[in-house]
Amino acid sequence: MDNILKFETVELDTEKKELVIIDQTKLPEDIEIIRLKEAQEIWDAIYLLKVRGAPAIGVAAAMGLYVLACSIDTDVTDVFLAELLKIKDYLNSSRPTAVNLSWALERMYRLAESMRESTVTDILKALKDEAIAIKSEDIAVCKAIGEYGLALIKSGDGVLTHCNAGQLATCRYGTATAPIYLAHERGMNIKVYADETRPLLQGARLTSFELSSAGIDVTLICDNMAATVMRQGKVQAVFVGCDRVAANGDTANKIGTSMVATAAARYGIPVYICAPTSTIDMNTPNGEAIKIEERPAEEVTEMWYKHRMAPEGVKVYNPAFDITDNDLIAGIITEYGIAKAPYDKSLKEIFNVKLSKKR
Amino acid sequence: MDNILKFETVELDTEKKELVIIDQTKLPEDIEIIRLKEAQEIWDAIYLLKVRGAPAIGVAAAMGLYVLACSIDTDVTDVFLAELLKIKDYLNSSRPTAVNLSWALERMYRLAESMRESTVTDILKALKDEAIAIKSEDIAVCKAIGEYGLALIKSGDGVLTHCNAGQLATCRYGTATAPIYLAHERGMNIKVYADETRPLLQGARLTSFELSSAGIDVTLICDNMAATVMRQGKVQAVFVGCDRVAANGDTANKIGTSMVATAAARYGIPVYICAPTSTIDMNTPNGEAIKIEERPAEEVTEMWYKHRMAPEGVKVYNPAFDITDNDLIAGIITEYGIAKAPYDKSLKEIFNVKLSKKR
Repeated sequence: MDNILKFETVELDTEKKELVIIDQTKLPEDIEIIRLKEAQEIWDAIYLLKVRGAPAIGVAAAMGLYVLACSIDTDVTDVFLAELLKIKDYLNSSRPTAVNLSWALERMYRLAESMRESTVTDILKALKDEAIAIKSEDIAVCKAIGEYGLALIKSGDGVLTHCNAGQLATCRYGTATAPIYLAHERGMNIKVYADETRPLLQGARLTSFELSSAGIDVTLICDNMAATVMRQGKVQAVFVGCDRVAANGDTANKIGTSMVATAAARYGIPVYICAPTSTIDMNTPNGEAIKIEERPAEEVTEMWYKHRMAPEGVKVYNPAFDITDNDLIAGIITEYGIAKAPYDKSLKEIFNVKLSKKR
Repeated sequence: MDNILKFETVELDTEKKELVIIDQTKLPEDIEIIRLKEAQEIWDAIYLLKVRGAPAIGVAAAMGLYVLACSIDTDVTDVFLAELLKIKDYLNSSRPTAVNLSWALERMYRLAESMRESTVTDILKALKDEAIAIKSEDIAVCKAIGEYGLALIKSGDGVLTHCNAGQLATCRYGTATAPIYLAHERGMNIKVYADETRPLLQGARLTSFELSSAGIDVTLICDNMAATVMRQGKVQAVFVGCDRVAANGDTANKIGTSMVATAAARYGIPVYICAPTSTIDMNTPNGEAIKIEERPAEEVTEMWYKHRMAPEGVKVYNPAFDITDNDLIAGIITEYGIAKAPYDKSLKEIFNVKLSKKR
């Protein structure tokens, strides 16, 4: 599949040594491509969700680390590595929940560290190639998830998704949208219900934008309408992305996912988590162990509004993610196949397959 | 309890013969009192939710019908009644789901019709008194619901509510908020979680406004965060209002209520519907028989926003209410006591008590 959007979510300008992203906070009104080369700019871009979605954050962080590494002013490898470590830790502090951020940064840093005997020039070259490889892998991973997910739906089905785990959250295909894009490409008729996803409206601004751009039948609903379309028999499957899957299958994803999953359980609708293995964290035993980011009250009370929509000073609780317990999950779709309950066993098997393919 | 707000939700200016309401679409930024005396103005005020909440709509419609009746230019009772019928039907077309609208209009019209032998002047006098009586009854009913509801919570409890079934939805106390106001008055420490309630944000704009004005500990959350605060053990009971309760207990209330109830069921939290008997419609057998209003897409895509928040032309589904099945409801709190499952039996008993008290 070609990129149905007219731009890349995340790109590395290898000549100018700049990280190039579409500013997702401006969508769908403005398509604004921005170029970043300062540490603070890149940190802000991640924190402020100009680039968002666990896989895209991973790629942007890897490319960002390379861009910033290019500005480290030394030829001494040890000095270079010490600086690189600081930059890595700084970027890693931008958001706590998505494991891809630390995963991609660790992968980049460890590669550099493993080249302690090499020149800075050689390390920079390797970092560039690694960042580009992480992006290519992301595209291949999403495609594989799409193929596995496609087998779970048939023409005529309605699919509900929450937040944006689409092309804009990855480098192509998306994770939760990959089965939908592939279905569309193969002439299947799939109706998509996109939750708007408060407070930051990624479903309204991004998912309904990218799916309708691709000519897919998408209907935007408010988050609190998901149970209603399910009750009406309009939804046959739920596909969502994730920010971190724990070893027991408990899944952190955008706030509201667990409510969607609870409603789906009532109506007997399967909920599938679309999870590249890079988002599965076998070192996190369960949902309780996942740190949930809390974000500013203003996102709820005023961010998008003409007028302030709640009284000044009102107390607000604004967790960015929630935990969907593993008993609400029908399957975790990875690039190596679909894990089913009991997840502590099936996720281990997925990693065994991954290891065997790497050999 | 005194009115903790500095204004009345709905009032009749008997001298100027005007319906006086606070324009709730302007809250919390502007406190704008508006005076209405034209049929179209009053219809618009209900349709556009300047006055909203099932009980308040009933009172406003009754007072509005009286105001419009004052302008009927005839001394002939039959001509007057024919005109009154037209006005009644017109006002009744403004919103379909809340039964209080048709209930209050019918009550007013039948009173007039029963006075077919009287003069127009006498009928107008009776209509004025009836409209004022409907308001007084609303206040008494809300207070009674508050007393019954109060027995279901204890100091230290967290209570979650959805939409606004507060003072602003009634004439005083509210329905779902009545137990909370009474608890506060009696020195109990209750923490309230208010769902913002997309798309029209009645929870953010109205509930968090009126509760914080009263000095009550209220935390605003997005609708999709309700399951999270429940999972964290912060919520011991859910109180919501309703627009129509069917004879079997199925309840139409603001869109999202059924998702709250489904999540509450998962966490073993009781959901109470606060329902004046005027919102219980024994002629509607179940939820399937309740007509659900669908409202314009723009409420979801642009109404409150600085920028358009979804692509132009995107398909939107915007039901204003949903049905909460009776098995998710722990009790229906009326002014005559609390009905429990099986509701087809218990609601009939509530009406028997009502009839016996009227005798």
